[in-house]
Amino acid sequence: MADADAPIPVDFRTEPARYKHWKLSFDGPVAILAMDVKEDGGLRPGYELKLNSYDLGVDIELYDAIQRLRFEHPEVGAVVLTSGKERVFCAGANIRMLNQSSHGWKVNFCKFTNETRNGIEEATAESRQSYLCAVNGPCAGGGYEMALATDWIIMADDGSTTVALPEVPLLAVLPGTGGLTRLVDKRKVRRDRADFFSTLERAARTDRPAGAAGIALPPLGRAIDGDRIAYGTIACALDRGRGVAEITIKGPEAQPPAALEAIRTASAAFWPLALARELDDLILHLRANEEEIGIWVFRTEGNAGLVEAHDRALQEHAADWLVREIRLYLKRTLKRLDVSSRSVFTLIEPGSCFTGTLLELALAADRSYMLDGVLEGDSRPPAAVRLTGMNFGAYPMPNGLTRLQSRFLGDPGHADDLKRSIGQDLDAPAAAAAGLVTFTPDDIDWGDEIRVAIEARAAFSPDALTGMEASLRFGGPETLESKIFSRLSAWQNWIFQRPNAVGDKGALRVYGTGQRSEFDRRRV
Amino acid sequence: MADADAPIPVDFRTEPARYKHWKLSFDGPVAILAMDVKEDGGLRPGYELKLNSYDLGVDIELYDAIQRLRFEHPEVGAVVLTSGKERVFCAGANIRMLNQSSHGWKVNFCKFTNETRNGIEEATAESRQSYLCAVNGPCAGGGYEMALATDWIIMADDGSTTVALPEVPLLAVLPGTGGLTRLVDKRKVRRDRADFFSTLERAARTDRPAGAAGIALPPLGRAIDGDRIAYGTIACALDRGRGVAEITIKGPEAQPPAALEAIRTASAAFWPLALARELDDLILHLRANEEEIGIWVFRTEGNAGLVEAHDRALQEHAADWLVREIRLYLKRTLKRLDVSSRSVFTLIEPGSCFTGTLLELALAADRSYMLDGVLEGDSRPPAAVRLTGMNFGAYPMPNGLTRLQSRFLGDPGHADDLKRSIGQDLDAPAAAAAGLVTFTPDDIDWGDEIRVAIEARAAFSPDALTGMEASLRFGGPETLESKIFSRLSAWQNWIFQRPNAVGDKGALRVYGTGQRSEFDRRRV
Repeated sequence: MADADAPIPVDFRTEPARYKHWKLSFDGPVAILAMDVKEDGGLRPGYELKLNSYDLGVDIELYDAIQRLRFEHPEVGAVVLTSGKERVFCAGANIRMLNQSSHGWKVNFCKFTNETRNGIEEATAESRQSYLCAVNGPCAGGGYEMALATDWIIMADDGSTTVALPEVPLLAVLPGTGGLTRLVDKRKVRRDRADFFSTLERAARTDRPAGAAGIALPPLGRAIDGDRIAYGTIACALDRGRGVAEITIKGPEAQPPAALEAIRTASAAFWPLALARELDDLILHLRANEEEIGIWVFRTEGNAGLVEAHDRALQEHAADWLVREIRLYLKRTLKRLDVSSRSVFTLIEPGSCFTGTLLELALAADRSYMLDGVLEGDSRPPAAVRLTGMNFGAYPMPNGLTRLQSRFLGDPGHADDLKRSIGQDLDAPAAAAAGLVTFTPDDIDWGDEIRVAIEARAAFSPDALTGMEASLRFGGPETLESKIFSRLSAWQNWIFQRPNAVGDKGALRVYGTGQRSEFDRRRV
Repeated sequence: MADADAPIPVDFRTEPARYKHWKLSFDGPVAILAMDVKEDGGLRPGYELKLNSYDLGVDIELYDAIQRLRFEHPEVGAVVLTSGKERVFCAGANIRMLNQSSHGWKVNFCKFTNETRNGIEEATAESRQSYLCAVNGPCAGGGYEMALATDWIIMADDGSTTVALPEVPLLAVLPGTGGLTRLVDKRKVRRDRADFFSTLERAARTDRPAGAAGIALPPLGRAIDGDRIAYGTIACALDRGRGVAEITIKGPEAQPPAALEAIRTASAAFWPLALARELDDLILHLRANEEEIGIWVFRTEGNAGLVEAHDRALQEHAADWLVREIRLYLKRTLKRLDVSSRSVFTLIEPGSCFTGTLLELALAADRSYMLDGVLEGDSRPPAAVRLTGMNFGAYPMPNGLTRLQSRFLGDPGHADDLKRSIGQDLDAPAAAAAGLVTFTPDDIDWGDEIRVAIEARAAFSPDALTGMEASLRFGGPETLESKIFSRLSAWQNWIFQRPNAVGDKGALRVYGTGQRSEFDRRRV
């Protein structure tokens, strides 16, 4: 994803003991997350992270800290985001890093940082873990965007604290990490200096259990062996010739723990949480390190009844803080899939378990193929899909609708009608009739049809597919989140390509050199 | 806007007698608009318009026909869009034309064709002049997008009639003229072949007056003299050094006709209609022919009371078919301003008449400056702005909100509260307090502040400004229309820049040569 000559793989797995750039501390119900970026700690050589400017490595640690605060610290009701440096808050994304990065790296960097900031907003709104930002020193560009992602911004009245979005004048690009969208859609007006609030009051209002123990998020078990990537719940095989990742999700192997206490004991081994963590890591890994793999093909294998039982557990204990976090994590991970610029196909075959939470993978796909009947020599019963209560509200897309609602925009009552089918096995004709799958070839056509579909897809322009998928996936209403990904990102994508930003005399290229940018003044 | 070596100016003024590509005929309440594109009638040399493919010249005639059907033909309730050729409907935008066009030309071409198709939808919804499309022969790409803009698509069952959107596989670009957005947001599902309807039934349902005489739209009086462009109601001076168009709108010079009949007699000379036509033409002219003029500065001069009187006439006679058309035309023209990728500033000075309809220019601006007081030596009273009923619903933006509602997203009641100020003269402090203007410098600061603002704007990257303005202008809800301009267009903008589309081996470049495109398979 970075420059061809520096393909250092990115690992999204980290933990507080390994942080270079952040310090996490606790004061009862309040956590303090202090940014103290190590200048020579960049993910790649060639730039220095001065003035608390950040690169992807800094944001990976921020993402990890946010995740751990949710799972490991139920007692924390408020998180203060601040700077650990004197008289400087955050200068935003590092410009030299941007300048030396490929187009794809820049776009992907923006996507990940947006997802992380959306996670801050979701923690505040749905986990009742409220973020506030204490700005101590100049806060510019991406730094201010980070502040805007919190609900409350406190500015020190010290003569040196300022906020600004200098992207347009200085860099000829946009405040793309949601800055512009948040200004008009979240803040509505510029009340930058008006937000004052007391930390302790926020923490006191949370419904997170002050006395509960968090669970630990142990290092993810991931084995990469050539073109195979294996997790506990996921196997992924890369076919570089065709540009395809064949991803198989394994359903749970046993009934879920019956009691809530046992779910807490299982903690990171509880199948839904293991799945969320591993799928999250796989998506990030493929996006950052495998940009020529343009098609992700999802399969599942396992027992539908066991998936359904786990979905029931997620519903029964929805009010529990930990189960709530697991549901929200699955929701965020499925949204990450929605905004990934890869073609997503789902294959529904005998032995699969596209039930409830896993059925969301088929609903998120650009196309799904369900085998009608069985292949010769396979003694297993034909494939079936099964809806659970989790398909009806737990996993909204970035546009605020469930995947069923998005699918049936033209027939708004249909998603509700499908509630009657919860728990039923739907074979290929029934699933097609219910509108849940795209194509249902029989055994004679199955192999050829899928082969041709994948070959055709691989032959198309990746850019046109990215634009088409982004346009077709999100019909209906828009939200702050969908606007950031579908509108602001598209504009920034374009601007990042233009000579005025990245050409020899472009603003990103000459930034800091003392030279002036030279702009082609023609408007489009 | 086109290639630098072929700067033939584009004239958007035409009339049926001069059409090369369309035939307009009438059968009582039904009009037939038949596309019969002249192969060697392209706007520029270098391509042939085969198979009813189109360039900007073809679309300029379509736009003119749609306008005339509304104003000159009140008796027409249904318009049938069809092909005048045997066995071919429309092959879409001409690919050779796209390939030889500059990036800006491609983007601007898409914007204008989208605006024209939105006009078809608005005529159906609000003028009760319903469009249907009779597809006779292959209908691909932009041809199918044109069909999708109508409410009813009738396909001949003749063995050769087909519809398709082949942009992604063949051209590595998007169906950017609203095709993708209309598929998911308007059609909701692919019910392409299901829409059958009877023309006569549609026509019978319209409320347009079968017996009324239309008004004529005479050729626009426009004088271009060097860097000055003069219309009856508008004067425009181009300052090429600073990249600024100084646009002055002249208010009406007399009271509006008191009776509806007199408005009909005045017809194209009625000030609101003259303004709509001339402003529409000026915007199109500047967009197509003056792409280095990045800042449009609007002023008005005239009598606020006379503007208000005209607004009252537009309100009193809103139910009349002609006045309805004039209101809708003003609405469309103001929307054209909203989606223009130019910085829009408004200067409110003594002698101006930013009242009602003209106040929309200040509300549409990226920034407005209102002089507090008077300049030395000016004996006129200080400037005032005045709201009329027309500011509260007649002119929604592409996002469906009025400009006041869009302005006060953070305080939804405020737009309604302002109704109490209708008819009052608001001086600079009052206008600032009401939130209607951005800055109110006094005479000491006025000149410098505006000079610095314009110089700063001119120094910024035009691309970054385009992206920023598109992001900031449309907060709040999205509609099919705003999605087309803000989301789909941004994606297409990006794709039109990418080597996979326009590089040496890009799909647009090699189309029709027999060579295959070579794609860089990396996803972003």
